[in-house]
Amino acid sequence: MPTSNPILIEVTRGARVESVHTGSIAIATPSGRLLLALGEVNRPVFARSAVKALQCLPLIESGAADHFGFGKAEIALACASHTGTDRHVALAASMLERAHLAERDLGCGAHAPMSPSAATVLIRAGGHPSQLHNNCSGKHAGMLATAVHLQEPTDRYWEVDHPVQRRIRRVMADLTGLDLGADMLGIDGCSVPTWAMPLSAMAQMFARLVTGEGLAAERQAAARRILEACWAEPELVAGAGRADTTVMRKLPGRIFMKTGAEGVYCGGFPELGIGFALKIDDGATRASAGTTIALIERILPDAKGLADRGHIKNWRGAEVGLIRTSPELERALDGLKL
Amino acid sequence: MPTSNPILIEVTRGARVESVHTGSIAIATPSGRLLLALGEVNRPVFARSAVKALQCLPLIESGAADHFGFGKAEIALACASHTGTDRHVALAASMLERAHLAERDLGCGAHAPMSPSAATVLIRAGGHPSQLHNNCSGKHAGMLATAVHLQEPTDRYWEVDHPVQRRIRRVMADLTGLDLGADMLGIDGCSVPTWAMPLSAMAQMFARLVTGEGLAAERQAAARRILEACWAEPELVAGAGRADTTVMRKLPGRIFMKTGAEGVYCGGFPELGIGFALKIDDGATRASAGTTIALIERILPDAKGLADRGHIKNWRGAEVGLIRTSPELERALDGLKL
Repeated sequence: MPTSNPILIEVTRGARVESVHTGSIAIATPSGRLLLALGEVNRPVFARSAVKALQCLPLIESGAADHFGFGKAEIALACASHTGTDRHVALAASMLERAHLAERDLGCGAHAPMSPSAATVLIRAGGHPSQLHNNCSGKHAGMLATAVHLQEPTDRYWEVDHPVQRRIRRVMADLTGLDLGADMLGIDGCSVPTWAMPLSAMAQMFARLVTGEGLAAERQAAARRILEACWAEPELVAGAGRADTTVMRKLPGRIFMKTGAEGVYCGGFPELGIGFALKIDDGATRASAGTTIALIERILPDAKGLADRGHIKNWRGAEVGLIRTSPELERALDGLKL
Repeated sequence: MPTSNPILIEVTRGARVESVHTGSIAIATPSGRLLLALGEVNRPVFARSAVKALQCLPLIESGAADHFGFGKAEIALACASHTGTDRHVALAASMLERAHLAERDLGCGAHAPMSPSAATVLIRAGGHPSQLHNNCSGKHAGMLATAVHLQEPTDRYWEVDHPVQRRIRRVMADLTGLDLGADMLGIDGCSVPTWAMPLSAMAQMFARLVTGEGLAAERQAAARRILEACWAEPELVAGAGRADTTVMRKLPGRIFMKTGAEGVYCGGFPELGIGFALKIDDGATRASAGTTIALIERILPDAKGLADRGHIKNWRGAEVGLIRTSPELERALDGLKL
């Protein structure tokens, strides 16, 4: 049961703890050895956007990326939960154009840019959010490009039985050794399937992704190309002020990380040969990001002060509380042997 | 410990539970008899905006409301977490003007209107959020009017030692019988003190507020006037699409309810002579609102379908999950004897 999970993050106000976030964390090697299993790590959890880098593998492996001349920028955007700035939107549009498609072919739906300044500029110009502003538009453009390159239909490419989604399901199953039956299926906010997997399996999957261990040579090369793209273009993977961008800009090559909705976070440390996956029971991003930053600062001790995750301010800018790691999380990290 | 609290709300995706919210609920009579104590109800919890109706009592009791000609609309706005529409903003400005003050005298800070359409209109017009758009501007205008009427300084009226805040602290202490020492103090998002109180005491406080039981005649009348104002002007207490507005518009006189930040909800049922207070451990409003609606629908069985609290949709508008009550919450409500 999720409630048996420990408190990972405390939110304080004055001298008191006001709110708490429970959750679970797995850290694993490519062979699946668990170096940390805090809380319940065997219960399947929807991976959401945390596995976009895995969903991107067929774009490379199919030859579609090369065929359409997608470089590091396009590949990074295909792995992104982007903030909908002009640069993100223009690049997604150009990916579609190169595949002889357009915004109307997307199935992700429209939402306002996650970047507050981009959202303001759009409104001030009298514009309305398009599907290109959806944080997943790069992923969807990559899915469509793959379908076009393989001469598959592009309509309803988001459905679970479309070859594009079947291919992605196979990638997840291959890298985790899981069956991924229909009972593990959910539909993501952008309409494509999301699969529920234990954190232990997701941590192993990311250990394999960042090391290449246990992958065929072609997949190893594709994985490496995806990681290099995200490290080269961290602004495209998320956007200004977002943890994935801030941390990967500071530590390219040393950490790959990706947030997902409902409090999921995944990533890996290539030089240490480990992957991690975590889920906050209640789905709060303030807690999944706070836990992830704490984990990274502990695993890479030279990487302090990665992101401002600590301060609760009132509307006049005064600090009134903190978002901080719990004693239980600190103890678990203390005991971590890498 | 908060983690021993039961799951109150489940968030599903496909056939699986994706996220859960734990929390606690107290239902009490004016004398403090607990009719429901689900989870930990004796741990102090910051009341936040859930007690704005109590913070409004001195505005009435001091004679300030009458002196400045504040009617139901102004009193409802003084109890509000409003959405920053033109009507809310104009009314807050007029309250300040009648007290010979202006927007610059507020200490609540500025934030964008909570109403997405009001926020869009403001940006499109090239405007910027002022302190009047702050969801607490009516409460602050009421505090300032009280200070002016009592010839107290208006600068730094938000500080814990200012007479305005000392008076509010006394109201809370009177209605709960609590001491409210400095260890129970936090600073709210709008810069005024917020006090931590057990849910059991808050539930009793709301039972007293809605029945008048145990209150002196003058306070009884002030409480009644506040409730009547909120029932007469539910759009001013929150705004279109917000649960407090939707439910109190449907059930005036039968339920008083008020949301607070970090997953707090309080209210009372005058005809039944009971009050309630609840807190979601992780602070999520989707769960505090969902729990409150479920509670009301159970306690007033003729009041079904109060608010749409159930559907998680993707960006294309398809339903992909639900926000639903947990079996534990349903069992607790099944056992409720009123």
